[in-house]
Amino acid sequence: MSNSGDRYERFTAAAKELADIAHAESLLHWDQETCMPRRGSEARARSLGTLAGLAHEKLTAPDFVELVQALDAAGPTGDEGVNVRELKRDQDRAVRIPKELVVELSRTESLAHDAWVEAREKSEFGLFRPWLERIVDLKRREAQAVGFTGSVYNALLDHFEPHARVEEVDPLLGELRRRLVPLVEEILGREAAPRDDLLDRDYDIALQESFGRRILADLGFDMEAGRLDVSVHPFCSGSHPGDVRLTTRYNPRQLTSALFGIIHEAGHGLYEQGLPAGAGGLPAGRAVSLGIHESQSRLWENSVGRSREFWEHYLPRLAECFPGQLEGVGVDRFYALVNRVERSLIRVEADEMTYDLHILLRYELEKALVEGELEVADLPAAWNDRMQSDLGVRPARDAEGVLQDIHWSAGLIGYFPTYTLGNLYGAQFYCQACADLGDLPGQVRRGELSGLLGWLRENIHSRGSRLTASELVQEVTGEPLRVDYLIDYLAAKFRPLYGLA
Amino acid sequence: MSNSGDRYERFTAAAKELADIAHAESLLHWDQETCMPRRGSEARARSLGTLAGLAHEKLTAPDFVELVQALDAAGPTGDEGVNVRELKRDQDRAVRIPKELVVELSRTESLAHDAWVEAREKSEFGLFRPWLERIVDLKRREAQAVGFTGSVYNALLDHFEPHARVEEVDPLLGELRRRLVPLVEEILGREAAPRDDLLDRDYDIALQESFGRRILADLGFDMEAGRLDVSVHPFCSGSHPGDVRLTTRYNPRQLTSALFGIIHEAGHGLYEQGLPAGAGGLPAGRAVSLGIHESQSRLWENSVGRSREFWEHYLPRLAECFPGQLEGVGVDRFYALVNRVERSLIRVEADEMTYDLHILLRYELEKALVEGELEVADLPAAWNDRMQSDLGVRPARDAEGVLQDIHWSAGLIGYFPTYTLGNLYGAQFYCQACADLGDLPGQVRRGELSGLLGWLRENIHSRGSRLTASELVQEVTGEPLRVDYLIDYLAAKFRPLYGLA
Repeated sequence: MSNSGDRYERFTAAAKELADIAHAESLLHWDQETCMPRRGSEARARSLGTLAGLAHEKLTAPDFVELVQALDAAGPTGDEGVNVRELKRDQDRAVRIPKELVVELSRTESLAHDAWVEAREKSEFGLFRPWLERIVDLKRREAQAVGFTGSVYNALLDHFEPHARVEEVDPLLGELRRRLVPLVEEILGREAAPRDDLLDRDYDIALQESFGRRILADLGFDMEAGRLDVSVHPFCSGSHPGDVRLTTRYNPRQLTSALFGIIHEAGHGLYEQGLPAGAGGLPAGRAVSLGIHESQSRLWENSVGRSREFWEHYLPRLAECFPGQLEGVGVDRFYALVNRVERSLIRVEADEMTYDLHILLRYELEKALVEGELEVADLPAAWNDRMQSDLGVRPARDAEGVLQDIHWSAGLIGYFPTYTLGNLYGAQFYCQACADLGDLPGQVRRGELSGLLGWLRENIHSRGSRLTASELVQEVTGEPLRVDYLIDYLAAKFRPLYGLA
Repeated sequence: MSNSGDRYERFTAAAKELADIAHAESLLHWDQETCMPRRGSEARARSLGTLAGLAHEKLTAPDFVELVQALDAAGPTGDEGVNVRELKRDQDRAVRIPKELVVELSRTESLAHDAWVEAREKSEFGLFRPWLERIVDLKRREAQAVGFTGSVYNALLDHFEPHARVEEVDPLLGELRRRLVPLVEEILGREAAPRDDLLDRDYDIALQESFGRRILADLGFDMEAGRLDVSVHPFCSGSHPGDVRLTTRYNPRQLTSALFGIIHEAGHGLYEQGLPAGAGGLPAGRAVSLGIHESQSRLWENSVGRSREFWEHYLPRLAECFPGQLEGVGVDRFYALVNRVERSLIRVEADEMTYDLHILLRYELEKALVEGELEVADLPAAWNDRMQSDLGVRPARDAEGVLQDIHWSAGLIGYFPTYTLGNLYGAQFYCQACADLGDLPGQVRRGELSGLLGWLRENIHSRGSRLTASELVQEVTGEPLRVDYLIDYLAAKFRPLYGLA
């Protein structure tokens, strides 16, 4: 065997070992949210800490760093190139961030989380402010350690959306905001729809679950390679295409939050199940980025799950489960209800139309914090002003404003924009799928969802991370990421719903 | 800090890291049996292999071996002494078994398992024979590598029952057999009890589960520090007193197998929940041995759960759950039914009276195999002859005889005797508890189980592995392990049940 072949073999063995540790970490996290008894938390935290330490030790072992550098210098191609490139990204980041900073961040985040919980409960930003200042400072130091060109925010963004840069993201998201604000205003300028509590009645949880499982099966989610469980915060956890776990939460007085939650997580889960199993735990078999991941969940949840065609097929079936509540309800009424647009304060409750305005606000504020353009002390006022200007509502309390999300307390800065990038990717992919598949709405109306899944499998899932997000969009849709697809989709969907031309 | 204090601190850090990896392994195994989707097995096997490798690497790292030897040489006392002693045992074993042998054993066991499954299905011992020969050979090599004095079997037994030796176990188990065989014969010489299918009717699984959970709570099993789930083979998995997981299986046409299964696993689980949490994952906080573990499960399942007093309290409550099946059924009938003695072929279905004869047969045969006194080829005949002489039945097919248990195919040689040691320990402990607690049967009759649990907590659970099994028995009961307690208990219980003086 050649020397370079032997080197690559050592590389793959180490990379697979890292994937195996990540598999264990992923399962421990999943269990913590779904199964773990309350008093198990101490041992769990310790075990997770040890596994993270072991992975860090393996990833940054001097021999392994040297090996990866030698392989990279040889300019590998194909999957070997992808594996070396992606692992080198992880390794560079891990090597550059000093251990003291990692420890300090982890300790601060843990305390900041507690402070945030209390601050939100009391709706008192002052309680959280010193912690957020500390976190912003530490994240800046992290960015300095990692290194960047252009905005310091790039070093943080790149962790969640590899290869993305403020210099490219800003114009896109700026344009989205400029076009979205007037569209929302146009739609919400109309008289408010009359109150309709159809979806907020008693809906038996067991029936909700069985209908959700039926939809999962119809979407093509493989239950021999996955599960559906209950957790406080829904998520999808995948560490191998053969073991992908979704969670949701059921509200006995609300029909659609669990239902669309399941479709959303299924979108993530179908992506994970469709990743190339043959990559055997190597980076080429991973998802591309959080944004591409989110494109899959949003595409299924919104473009498919909130479409009129989808409910033409499923409403009669849903009404069979809940005859007392839904018998005789027409598709028009149901379709309008699951697409009600509102000026709301809370991101996680926002509709498809206004959701991105919530995200854009967070993106620009966190960027300004990290870039030193905004002081943490001025954050609540900036938040409220922006809510007023973009969404026409102003939080009366910080709990409904700047304190609502967990992300910043957990050190997740650079994460928010991936939600909106996901919506942009998703709309552009969906448009291409419609073009490639011919009558996709007709297929959805007939309950035929396998055509779309096949298209996603072929064009996106099976590629793993062999292309970067930008390369993938270019390859699949023939052009770079554009705002038009999302705007056009929203306008075409919501204008008629709200009686506009 | 003194040099030795510093050394011990490094020791505890490494030992806790090992405990943290073991926690992850334990959870991955639990999940595999309870939750994992079918197609997750490949990634799971790889991750478990990697974790086992990491643990082995850490345990046998030359620096750590040196550290443990230095600490051991200083003759540490108290918990430090226990921790060093127990970790050194693990380390010595791990260091001495060559990696090639570990790999070969693991590969052979995996293939032997498949061969055993097929052989059992076809009831053809010939299909399993070459694999068992290979396993016996490898286990002998393992024993040679580990080292032993006296019987080669000691090296294998010691892995499951630390510090136990054939030279001490043989006389005990020999005496047990000599006294048990005539007792069983005496009892089964009587006319067979008339057929009674009371326990083999329709028993709704959800009701079985809710009654099982009620019993768990009454026994004192803390659901904030544990769970109950379903698996094909019931087990208890504990990696920390705050996270102890029991499983059972429900049969909709059989009432008591799940019920006594739950009580049995709860006995294991109460032990795990009662281990000293303050030991923080160090060896002093571990269970003593498989035998002591089994003493806890058997004590609760049999001495308590199959006692007349227990059912005087619980039968009316059980009848409330299953009025159609159990209303009007008297305690005498129920008590006799859950203590029916039979000449049966299958160990896992055997009653309390004959169970140990099944174990003693396996113990002596596997010992003879390892000591070279018996050829694998002669095993089925030896098995059948022994069944005839001890239990008065002869398997017509190997599937109901020598092929029934998974243990040997999994390389578990030296494991079987811990079941019977557990029964002996359990009977001796229970007798002491009765003496210490005064009217224990009266407490059980009133449904007061906390006195016994408190006694076990104080005398056994909270001690962790600070005493060896023999030391524990001596300390708690004032004498070494004896056969009399189990024999006297069985005679006193079953003679009256079968109309004997």
